[in-house]
Amino acid sequence: MSARTSRTRRRRQPLRRAVPGTSPGQLTPPPDALHPIVSLFGYGPDEHLELADADPEAVREALARWPVVWVNVDGLGDPDLVARLGALFGLHRLALEDVVHVHQRPKVEHYTDHIYIVLRLPDPGAEGLESEQISLFLGHNFVLTFQERPGDAFAPVRERIRGGKGRLRAAGPDYLAYALIDAGVDSNFPVLESLGEQLEDMELEIVDRPGRGAVVALHAIRRSLLNLRRGIWPMREMLGALSRDADPLVGDETRLYLRDCYDHAVQIIDLLETYREIAAGLLDVYLSSVSNRMNEIMKVLTIISTLFIPLTFIVGIYGMNFHFMPELQWRWSYPILWGIMLSVVVGMLYYFRRKKWL
Amino acid sequence: MSARTSRTRRRRQPLRRAVPGTSPGQLTPPPDALHPIVSLFGYGPDEHLELADADPEAVREALARWPVVWVNVDGLGDPDLVARLGALFGLHRLALEDVVHVHQRPKVEHYTDHIYIVLRLPDPGAEGLESEQISLFLGHNFVLTFQERPGDAFAPVRERIRGGKGRLRAAGPDYLAYALIDAGVDSNFPVLESLGEQLEDMELEIVDRPGRGAVVALHAIRRSLLNLRRGIWPMREMLGALSRDADPLVGDETRLYLRDCYDHAVQIIDLLETYREIAAGLLDVYLSSVSNRMNEIMKVLTIISTLFIPLTFIVGIYGMNFHFMPELQWRWSYPILWGIMLSVVVGMLYYFRRKKWL
Amino acid sequence: MSARTSRTRRRRQPLRRAVPGTSPGQLTPPPDALHPIVSLFGYGPDEHLELADADPEAVREALARWPVVWVNVDGLGDPDLVARLGALFGLHRLALEDVVHVHQRPKVEHYTDHIYIVLRLPDPGAEGLESEQISLFLGHNFVLTFQERPGDAFAPVRERIRGGKGRLRAAGPDYLAYALIDAGVDSNFPVLESLGEQLEDMELEIVDRPGRGAVVALHAIRRSLLNLRRGIWPMREMLGALSRDADPLVGDETRLYLRDCYDHAVQIIDLLETYREIAAGLLDVYLSSVSNRMNEIMKVLTIISTLFIPLTFIVGIYGMNFHFMPELQWRWSYPILWGIMLSVVVGMLYYFRRKKWL
Amino acid sequence: MSARTSRTRRRRQPLRRAVPGTSPGQLTPPPDALHPIVSLFGYGPDEHLELADADPEAVREALARWPVVWVNVDGLGDPDLVARLGALFGLHRLALEDVVHVHQRPKVEHYTDHIYIVLRLPDPGAEGLESEQISLFLGHNFVLTFQERPGDAFAPVRERIRGGKGRLRAAGPDYLAYALIDAGVDSNFPVLESLGEQLEDMELEIVDRPGRGAVVALHAIRRSLLNLRRGIWPMREMLGALSRDADPLVGDETRLYLRDCYDHAVQIIDLLETYREIAAGLLDVYLSSVSNRMNEIMKVLTIISTLFIPLTFIVGIYGMNFHFMPELQWRWSYPILWGIMLSVVVGMLYYFRRKKWL
Amino acid sequence: MSARTSRTRRRRQPLRRAVPGTSPGQLTPPPDALHPIVSLFGYGPDEHLELADADPEAVREALARWPVVWVNVDGLGDPDLVARLGALFGLHRLALEDVVHVHQRPKVEHYTDHIYIVLRLPDPGAEGLESEQISLFLGHNFVLTFQERPGDAFAPVRERIRGGKGRLRAAGPDYLAYALIDAGVDSNFPVLESLGEQLEDMELEIVDRPGRGAVVALHAIRRSLLNLRRGIWPMREMLGALSRDADPLVGDETRLYLRDCYDHAVQIIDLLETYREIAAGLLDVYLSSVSNRMNEIMKVLTIISTLFIPLTFIVGIYGMNFHFMPELQWRWSYPILWGIMLSVVVGMLYYFRRKKWL
Repeated sequence: MSARTSRTRRRRQPLRRAVPGTSPGQLTPPPDALHPIVSLFGYGPDEHLELADADPEAVREALARWPVVWVNVDGLGDPDLVARLGALFGLHRLALEDVVHVHQRPKVEHYTDHIYIVLRLPDPGAEGLESEQISLFLGHNFVLTFQERPGDAFAPVRERIRGGKGRLRAAGPDYLAYALIDAGVDSNFPVLESLGEQLEDMELEIVDRPGRGAVVALHAIRRSLLNLRRGIWPMREMLGALSRDADPLVGDETRLYLRDCYDHAVQIIDLLETYREIAAGLLDVYLSSVSNRMNEIMKVLTIISTLFIPLTFIVGIYGMNFHFMPELQWRWSYPILWGIMLSVVVGMLYYFRRKKWL
Repeated sequence: MSARTSRTRRRRQPLRRAVPGTSPGQLTPPPDALHPIVSLFGYGPDEHLELADADPEAVREALARWPVVWVNVDGLGDPDLVARLGALFGLHRLALEDVVHVHQRPKVEHYTDHIYIVLRLPDPGAEGLESEQISLFLGHNFVLTFQERPGDAFAPVRERIRGGKGRLRAAGPDYLAYALIDAGVDSNFPVLESLGEQLEDMELEIVDRPGRGAVVALHAIRRSLLNLRRGIWPMREMLGALSRDADPLVGDETRLYLRDCYDHAVQIIDLLETYREIAAGLLDVYLSSVSNRMNEIMKVLTIISTLFIPLTFIVGIYGMNFHFMPELQWRWSYPILWGIMLSVVVGMLYYFRRKKWL
Repeated sequence: MSARTSRTRRRRQPLRRAVPGTSPGQLTPPPDALHPIVSLFGYGPDEHLELADADPEAVREALARWPVVWVNVDGLGDPDLVARLGALFGLHRLALEDVVHVHQRPKVEHYTDHIYIVLRLPDPGAEGLESEQISLFLGHNFVLTFQERPGDAFAPVRERIRGGKGRLRAAGPDYLAYALIDAGVDSNFPVLESLGEQLEDMELEIVDRPGRGAVVALHAIRRSLLNLRRGIWPMREMLGALSRDADPLVGDETRLYLRDCYDHAVQIIDLLETYREIAAGLLDVYLSSVSNRMNEIMKVLTIISTLFIPLTFIVGIYGMNFHFMPELQWRWSYPILWGIMLSVVVGMLYYFRRKKWL
Repeated sequence: MSARTSRTRRRRQPLRRAVPGTSPGQLTPPPDALHPIVSLFGYGPDEHLELADADPEAVREALARWPVVWVNVDGLGDPDLVARLGALFGLHRLALEDVVHVHQRPKVEHYTDHIYIVLRLPDPGAEGLESEQISLFLGHNFVLTFQERPGDAFAPVRERIRGGKGRLRAAGPDYLAYALIDAGVDSNFPVLESLGEQLEDMELEIVDRPGRGAVVALHAIRRSLLNLRRGIWPMREMLGALSRDADPLVGDETRLYLRDCYDHAVQIIDLLETYREIAAGLLDVYLSSVSNRMNEIMKVLTIISTLFIPLTFIVGIYGMNFHFMPELQWRWSYPILWGIMLSVVVGMLYYFRRKKWL
Repeated sequence: MSARTSRTRRRRQPLRRAVPGTSPGQLTPPPDALHPIVSLFGYGPDEHLELADADPEAVREALARWPVVWVNVDGLGDPDLVARLGALFGLHRLALEDVVHVHQRPKVEHYTDHIYIVLRLPDPGAEGLESEQISLFLGHNFVLTFQERPGDAFAPVRERIRGGKGRLRAAGPDYLAYALIDAGVDSNFPVLESLGEQLEDMELEIVDRPGRGAVVALHAIRRSLLNLRRGIWPMREMLGALSRDADPLVGDETRLYLRDCYDHAVQIIDLLETYREIAAGLLDVYLSSVSNRMNEIMKVLTIISTLFIPLTFIVGIYGMNFHFMPELQWRWSYPILWGIMLSVVVGMLYYFRRKKWL
């Protein structure tokens, strides 16, 4: 248990963005931020360029050449890089600040020539499904994404760019942004599925062998569901706003696709709430299983006591050493006593059966 | 129990529509999809045609000839067929995709010359009333429905087409769509009625013989109610939108009927919520029954112990082998002791009666 | 208990209006519908006519002669009669259908020359306060009401027509409709009052003698409150709509009275919710009473065991038959042992007192 | 307990306004209504008149002479008086009816030349803080208030009229109405404060000595909070409407003060809901305290049984009277047995310590 | 425990602003208000002035000279000072009254030439995180703040004024007001973080060693969360209004920053609700831990009783003194009896193992 705890402690980031009251617009990265790796995709309908490790200069060149450029930064450990990319793409200062203060709620913010979108994705490796913040900037010819940790939620989109099939290569940066958001939202499904399976396994376990471990595990699942929920509810709002509100940077067709993405978020919320209710129900089942088990134990205890305590009393009587106990001399006392004791037992067993304790 | 589990496992479909991040518009049917069977109805006020197994060519001919054509596809196992029917009826690509990704929430989507409606009906054969997705396309002269499994929710509508009485044969495809939706919504009633009866039986059982089985069964009912609820709430929204929003494909008269259908959905929700509260109340009754029973057992245990343990102590005293115990020689010790023991018992019984433990 | 159950079963009506999927507009009465009795009132400011058993012909004549005609039908067993009255008064087909499908929620529907209102009143005779559906049609010069069972909610209104005092005889059919609705809504008060008294009695009983019966009774009250609630919430909406929306059939003055009626419905809901919370609170009190009682029993059990089990062990020691037990020969062993045993008892009692178990 | 009950019974008023279905507009006072006492204040900036017992004629005269007249009626036992005052001030019939039917929710009703306001104030003397209805009519130059019972919520306002300082004497009747409403709303604070103190005391008691009395007292507090809540929620709505909606009878400045009054109502609701949550939390603490106590008792019981029952068995063995038991003759049997028994006890105590039961 | 209580008592302030019904606009400070200390900052882009203890005259001078003046008053014990500052800055009477009546909910009120803002900040030193009221007035060239107690929430802002870096010194009083509000809102983070850590520690403790202290501590955390929540919810509304509604005193740029502040409040609420759910879940874990422990104890008790009580009965039989007990003479009785007793024990242990009690 202690191993698990210390691990939780290590991962937990402070909630505060900075010391309360400090000046806004400061780019102070989270203390455990990783060193950034910048990757770049530039593509048009026919060709594409992929750079696994790009520097700002390469980004500038790609912007000049390719119809759509996607720059992805894994790790927020270098505030200078963030500032330089911000200057290169002309991003708003408050947005840049939110990139490194990784406790933002999912939201969308419209600036004059770019949109800033914050996503929160469950991090399957983290304790209790703590979520990771993904920042996405959408401009006229670029998409810029920042991830806290290198993850593979975007891997299938990379494959689609490389493959060159489907709409993606022919469409603009808004469609790329949609594809990334969609991949992010859908990354909740495997996590949810795994939680659903855990709940199902737990259901069998709780009914068969209710133990303390089950409640602790159930509590952990409920915490994970709470964490998922904290990420997906504002994501739904954000997707609703994005698919509803007109912005020249997002085409009508893409808005239709985002509506589909919104539907997925609602589906995830539906499932989440159902799982939460099932988990609550399981706790009830557990508690009643425990009290049933207690009941059963009590019944055995009562039956044993009720059968033997009176008998022990009876045999105690004739263990007394009084000089004048007429029964002791009688010839048939002993067998008669056996008879009495037997009938006491039989009578009690009959009584218990009538009470349905057996 | 294990049989039941494995069955659950077999039926459970993965939640994900596809691998997250794959291109939208792909028609990947669910892994356990059945091979499709296409049936066709064409009718006008006076005549009708019924084909139990139709191919796309037959559909094309029927569309040319009959005022109203209803094509029903049972089973989603053949994506090519779905694509060909989509092309034949001019359906939107995103809608076709939702047909085969069978975890949609009930919704209505208006396209330029057709409406796409998703229904979810409880599948009485499935574990925990998992719901089945029905897709319905309504066009100028056709209704196209897709079902996951051949079911009989639509059987009465087929009978009404064959019979030729009532409004159905004389009315347009919008009325047929209404009739199908109405049959779908109303198919919740028998399921609810059966759950209501189970709850009523459970109530008697819980009061008479509270056992572990009851809680597990109650939990199963609550899960079923949750599943029904997950289907019917968005159905209500969808019916509200359909009966409220003007669309040239749905006549005013049909909208009035859809309003009636909406009322049914609200009625179902009312019942559902009432059943959920009753189920929660039953759990309370169960828990209190169990603790009452425990109480009763404890009382018996206490009375037995309280009566006999002191007596056993008393007889133990005179079983001691001390050489100098004056009472042992006295003539009346033994009968006097019986008197003392009797009065102890009587005194205790009086005390218990005053405490209302008897 | 079985008698109660079978009675419940007899009264319970199927939830379904009809077989799902059948054609709408069919007048299939509920299976246990009673044979209808038609009564008629015709009145003006000065005179009135009362017919206890009227046929459609008499209704037609009364319509021609009296300023206001009220036809009341008790029992829905004759669909033909409903259809004939529908034709006579020119009622809409969907409304007529809802009259016989007695599971409608309270609602108001405006047709071109009549208003259709559905009320649900608690049926004090029914198990769990199942509600009865009352249908009310309001036209230019008539009010037509359908009741499932002959009841006396409308009796005071009849008296007021006969008496001829107050506004009723001078006012139009809208005021009559208001008077009937008001009588219906207010019929919830005595039912609520009786539930409130039951809750109060239960409170005393639960505190004094918590027993299994109390929980079952509490559960029954909660079910009744749920049933009442299911009727009165939509009634509130309906009354709000009726008093707010302009309709030439309802005068402004009557709308003011309906507003008063709406206030009553809100008052009923307030009380209902308060009673629901009190009932939930009583369950908590019950559960804590039971566990307190258990606690007390356990304490007695523990004290008995703790006092006598060690003593029994001590006397058992000197009941052993070892040849070499020096204590047995000593002169003062027996009185000394009594002293030891007494001090053990006193010590324990002192310990229990300090623990506050006595 | 029975004394308390009978008192509750005596105070409880029937919920119904009248027999359901009777004609509206009837002035039937509640059965236990007190005989009315009419007091009168007439004032202007410089002078004031106070009559402790006024008749309608005196009211008429005061209306003619003073800029602002406040008539207060304590007790609703005389419907004629209510009717005469209604005629004198030109009040609406429906409003007068609501004055005597004392189960109105707080509300405001705008009539052509007066406003009718219903307040509900907690009655500290009543069982469970049952509330009292105050009716307030505001006209061009008068305020007319009706109270069920003579109470002192308005006493400070009387003092302010007599004192003649502050805005009150110089302002119009709308400011007087505000002052009365404000005094009424604020009369919830001492009641809440007392409940808060009771909760705090209870918290200590429950943690230290959890007993059945605590739960019953907690239930009583929760009922009182429910009753307060039933009065204050609609009061908040009413104050919101009053401070928002324009009415020539209420000046803009007074509306600003009413907004302040609305803030107080919101503050009261905030506190109320916090107290409700604290009370619910205390029940949890109580239940866990009880089960902890039970746990402790069980531990003692188990330790006693576990220590002595095996020992009693051992000494029982050597109390048997078999002729051939070699141990009985051995010289060191008795001391060896003591050794065995001691080591059994020590072993068990070690085991309990490891299990943390000691 | 008593020390803690008396401390709570001392700190608790009466809820009431004043005696109900007294005239509004009276400046009666809370009974335990501290003597005020007035500090002053005047600054422009290039210079600044700081006075640790200023009098009204110094304030007047600073207003005339500096572009932005911030006056901060710690302690509300001197109503005259409040009144004089009110007159100096031209503040509204109702607002001044709210400054000293320190139970306001967070709110914003727009007066003609100043805005009055009420904040509530958690007071980490107070019992149960009782909150402190901060009043902030924003005018054309000043910010005036009142604090109940000298606190350090605003310390970083002071540092930023002194430092002269960042936007603060160059911007107007609206930006200063934003900086102060932001510091106030963010002061919730460390408090929340500490509660989160306490919850995490408690989780480990409850799973390992469930004790009564844990529940009491959990209850205290829940109370603290309730208190935080009571402050932060209306703060969110207030910030929403402030960032949305146009007011000439608040620039567009500042409104953008306030929107960021609003996002922080929403983040705090999210965390708060998550913690509340976790705390509720921990109670469930605790209760199930306790009942598990009870279960375990019961099992030991049952096993001991079940093993030894029958054996004690058996040895009791052969302790009887009947003259005619054939078994007593038999040669092998004693070893045979041992065999019987051993097999009884083995049989029972086998039974328990099968029942999974071992």
